[in-house]
Amino acid sequence: MVKVGIIMGSDSDLPIMQEAADILNQFQIEYEIRIVSAHRTPHHMVNYASTAIERGLKVIIAGAGGAAHLPGMVASITTLPVIGVPVKSSNSVDGWDSILSILQMPNGVPVATVALNAAKNAGILAASILAIEDPRLSQELSLYKKQMEANVLEKDKKMNQ
Amino acid sequence: MVKVGIIMGSDSDLPIMQEAADILNQFQIEYEIRIVSAHRTPHHMVNYASTAIERGLKVIIAGAGGAAHLPGMVASITTLPVIGVPVKSSNSVDGWDSILSILQMPNGVPVATVALNAAKNAGILAASILAIEDPRLSQELSLYKKQMEANVLEKDKKMNQ
Amino acid sequence: MVKVGIIMGSDSDLPIMQEAADILNQFQIEYEIRIVSAHRTPHHMVNYASTAIERGLKVIIAGAGGAAHLPGMVASITTLPVIGVPVKSSNSVDGWDSILSILQMPNGVPVATVALNAAKNAGILAASILAIEDPRLSQELSLYKKQMEANVLEKDKKMNQ
Amino acid sequence: MVKVGIIMGSDSDLPIMQEAADILNQFQIEYEIRIVSAHRTPHHMVNYASTAIERGLKVIIAGAGGAAHLPGMVASITTLPVIGVPVKSSNSVDGWDSILSILQMPNGVPVATVALNAAKNAGILAASILAIEDPRLSQELSLYKKQMEANVLEKDKKMNQ
Amino acid sequence: MVKVGIIMGSDSDLPIMQEAADILNQFQIEYEIRIVSAHRTPHHMVNYASTAIERGLKVIIAGAGGAAHLPGMVASITTLPVIGVPVKSSNSVDGWDSILSILQMPNGVPVATVALNAAKNAGILAASILAIEDPRLSQELSLYKKQMEANVLEKDKKMNQ
Amino acid sequence: MVKVGIIMGSDSDLPIMQEAADILNQFQIEYEIRIVSAHRTPHHMVNYASTAIERGLKVIIAGAGGAAHLPGMVASITTLPVIGVPVKSSNSVDGWDSILSILQMPNGVPVATVALNAAKNAGILAASILAIEDPRLSQELSLYKKQMEANVLEKDKKMNQ
Amino acid sequence: MVKVGIIMGSDSDLPIMQEAADILNQFQIEYEIRIVSAHRTPHHMVNYASTAIERGLKVIIAGAGGAAHLPGMVASITTLPVIGVPVKSSNSVDGWDSILSILQMPNGVPVATVALNAAKNAGILAASILAIEDPRLSQELSLYKKQMEANVLEKDKKMNQ
Amino acid sequence: MVKVGIIMGSDSDLPIMQEAADILNQFQIEYEIRIVSAHRTPHHMVNYASTAIERGLKVIIAGAGGAAHLPGMVASITTLPVIGVPVKSSNSVDGWDSILSILQMPNGVPVATVALNAAKNAGILAASILAIEDPRLSQELSLYKKQMEANVLEKDKKMNQ
Repeated sequence: MVKVGIIMGSDSDLPIMQEAADILNQFQIEYEIRIVSAHRTPHHMVNYASTAIERGLKVIIAGAGGAAHLPGMVASITTLPVIGVPVKSSNSVDGWDSILSILQMPNGVPVATVALNAAKNAGILAASILAIEDPRLSQELSLYKKQMEANVLEKDKKMNQ
Repeated sequence: MVKVGIIMGSDSDLPIMQEAADILNQFQIEYEIRIVSAHRTPHHMVNYASTAIERGLKVIIAGAGGAAHLPGMVASITTLPVIGVPVKSSNSVDGWDSILSILQMPNGVPVATVALNAAKNAGILAASILAIEDPRLSQELSLYKKQMEANVLEKDKKMNQ
Repeated sequence: MVKVGIIMGSDSDLPIMQEAADILNQFQIEYEIRIVSAHRTPHHMVNYASTAIERGLKVIIAGAGGAAHLPGMVASITTLPVIGVPVKSSNSVDGWDSILSILQMPNGVPVATVALNAAKNAGILAASILAIEDPRLSQELSLYKKQMEANVLEKDKKMNQ
Repeated sequence: MVKVGIIMGSDSDLPIMQEAADILNQFQIEYEIRIVSAHRTPHHMVNYASTAIERGLKVIIAGAGGAAHLPGMVASITTLPVIGVPVKSSNSVDGWDSILSILQMPNGVPVATVALNAAKNAGILAASILAIEDPRLSQELSLYKKQMEANVLEKDKKMNQ
Repeated sequence: MVKVGIIMGSDSDLPIMQEAADILNQFQIEYEIRIVSAHRTPHHMVNYASTAIERGLKVIIAGAGGAAHLPGMVASITTLPVIGVPVKSSNSVDGWDSILSILQMPNGVPVATVALNAAKNAGILAASILAIEDPRLSQELSLYKKQMEANVLEKDKKMNQ
Repeated sequence: MVKVGIIMGSDSDLPIMQEAADILNQFQIEYEIRIVSAHRTPHHMVNYASTAIERGLKVIIAGAGGAAHLPGMVASITTLPVIGVPVKSSNSVDGWDSILSILQMPNGVPVATVALNAAKNAGILAASILAIEDPRLSQELSLYKKQMEANVLEKDKKMNQ
Repeated sequence: MVKVGIIMGSDSDLPIMQEAADILNQFQIEYEIRIVSAHRTPHHMVNYASTAIERGLKVIIAGAGGAAHLPGMVASITTLPVIGVPVKSSNSVDGWDSILSILQMPNGVPVATVALNAAKNAGILAASILAIEDPRLSQELSLYKKQMEANVLEKDKKMNQ
Repeated sequence: MVKVGIIMGSDSDLPIMQEAADILNQFQIEYEIRIVSAHRTPHHMVNYASTAIERGLKVIIAGAGGAAHLPGMVASITTLPVIGVPVKSSNSVDGWDSILSILQMPNGVPVATVALNAAKNAGILAASILAIEDPRLSQELSLYKKQMEANVLEKDKKMNQ
């Protein structure tokens, strides 16, 4: 059953947002990947956010660039945790607009913001949220962390020689 | 008949946004002043924007601070010109978040952004838009400009003595 | 009859500003496209702005980069609505100078600023302003919005499969 | 049973971080509030993060200012979701250092960052994460959202009169 | 005979710009101090700049804040050296708008920009320009520099004891 | 006789700084072009600045990037007007370091700062300073301005057809 | 014997720089505290830096604000390690100028930069440098670290009750 | 005997950090170069920092990008001087995150920060620290400075001809 909704405002964001999907695949978490634009399909966006819980979603990952309203607007409608990915799109002012318009949400409506273009981390964060009540996933995350550690230690070993 | 809708996300923005109302009063333009929050009342916001034209509005002035989504979201729903006022609210990062999240709208959905806290200029811009087909208003704006000029020239005269 | 004046400080801004012209063409709005530099042709600029109303212009779109004074100076002379397009020119400090020197106009002299390089949005904003008293144009804008929406929904459909 | 650990680098951050505790109280979520400094008590920090899961914590909220390493370092050790609160401390460069050193985590180690000083939103985000498998909490969040909405609608009603 | 014109866009800039006048007084350089607004009195500004040379001015000091167009516009009209003083006015975005809109002039039209609020330095720079062909003034500047040096050395002496 | 000293901290700045030399050539102003590093040749720098007046220099143009101390340090030693050119060197943080470390000089020691990489404008500013007492140069500058204007008007004419 | 020279450009920086002296006192490291301005006493600065080694200094701590050239210029003359303290002085652009003009030194001439206004940390860094060959000092630093840790642990204990 | 530890969070930082190694080679200072990630190998990092003194290290150079916690975390554990190199990594926001998260350390835990990507300067700074009690190294640094000076003077000579 689909647990994570990955949405983005434009298919031009797909190369970035695909990384969220890839890592969810790796953790065997079912997801859907959709184009939902706050600015060009506001009613679709309202509908998507309003029905997210009843459709069984547990977490939403929303990526957007420039005046990036998608994550915040979705968070204004659903009570699910929303993870925001600021995308450094071509019309962005060096990514600052994407970061600030996702991060600086007013009291009452949080967005869990990750680093610029960090869709992979959005996927890992979604996994860590779902892992709270899922021992398999919790263990997978633990292994992932150990693997990362082992890779760096291996590289360090080589460099140290 | 009400021609301009002045909206803001929170009544804490009223001291700033009142300046838009004051200048519209001065130009004898009817307006309404409302609290419409993109993040706390998204359905109210969609409704407000969707019915704006049929209710006779010609221009919408929207003020917001922080991750300021109100102007852009209203512009995503209505085809009326939307003037955005970035408000330097208490939780803003020096106003940069307010400016960038209003200004940096994607192609297809413009917001006519004015300076930080410049609700007065939003009112004047609304007047200049309405003046296109309103000779009385056009003349008023012309007089307003001349009065500003005269005031500065008067001050210069005094200083020059 | 020409209703919109598109002006820019240098022909190096033409690739950006042409997008304003293209969208006005699409909406069948007559425009002129001119080179008017605040810094290199100040008298031409004063003359252009002073005669804009009598020449029948309704809206002026002004693009400029760096210390971008053209939109603000034109707005200081005419009472027409002036839309400013901050251009990220080659000598710009990442576009911040263009944005701030167009946006941060003092009380009394607003410029309707759009996003960095967003000449297309300037054209749409001009159309939405002209549409206030033009039912055909209002309907065209409505169709444009619906078409944008349909395009995104179509892309979402494909991605969802 | 304590489900949320609220930690901060210094008791000078308490006035901000208390807001996270208050909102968790409101949602009847048990929490602990602790001082854990990445820079002054690194071993305590490692220990706190390493034992978080076995102690039953589900989510960690970490607030810090300046070169704010606490959220990211805790996230490097535990697989629990870590929510970072950038604090605009007295020695901060307008909050930019706090924001960037929490948000910009490398691939593999996400921190769910909220707005500057937004400890209240950190609490709400923690609640929304815990609500995924907790129908009571999910309903509480839904009521909270409705109450926020009702409050704004009430204020709008008054202003509209 | 008046050699330096000190101009500012608004009398609210006077407390800052007075420091330019004070230092010119100290160097016995005649000046005038005037209010000339690019945005509110564009024709006055054009006239002031156009007649500056024939009126005997040698240097113009122009202070402005926000979207600060006065120094650049005056420089676009006269061939006199124009010294720009970015003023951190109340509506400025921390002074960045004032700095960038004065400094970032395009090729062909320089403005000699000094530090934020540094009207005193504008006065000293004007003196150093006039001193090129004025041995008395050159000597005065030399004495001024020595006096500054002596003051610091004196303070160092005291601290060293 | 050499009237303008063009100095730079490194020969890597030459492609930028050459533009100052070119424009001085065009105005028939004699100059020298030298490498003087505040950080790598501090004694050479002190010597260059100390002897500038006796060697007949009237204006110094100093270009530097990163922590750009050359213009300010030369200005601390000589009473000649010093024009600073912030260079966006390879190790610069987008040019901000170059701009701020040249512009933000303390009271008593001004540097006439021009735009990022604007060595050409530094040359024109030097010419405008020297023109104060040089009618030929003043006329040349006037012609230069008119030529710039004519070029833009010509381009506007073509575009208008 | 004096081992550390604490210098600052102006006595207005003393309240900040005194913290460096206080911590050196605490570690029983002899220091001198002097006013040495790169811009107002360049020859004094050159002299101070040139004679630092022969006078027995081991480390120099230099604080400055705005276009802060003192640390970098001293580092250009002496081979001693120079610690730079960016001071957020009254004329600074939010401290950014102080930070960038101290930090961004070119290859060959490093300055060990600490945080904005962090004179205390400059003192601790000086101590850690001197401790390399001084077992007493190394032990003192170790105790200092442990005391910091103990203080935080104590506070955590109280809060945890 | 190895005196300097050069560490970095990822081997992608090696091209930058190699410059620190190269300059230490040139000064005949023994070093090790290691991969130690604060975020992916926190226990390795704690271990590395904890044993640095007993292993004979005198100075640690740590390079990192983005939310760069490595230098500060190492400094929180060891009392050795830690030199931080902000790396402009691919996921960095123009280097600002790297700079601020290394530089802005809280009171008690300094990091000696050098310029963006300035690993070479980190090496020179390490040498200058070690030179305090090492006359050979002190002389080497003096020669290095003179050689730099000679190189610039030579280039100036050529340009002057």
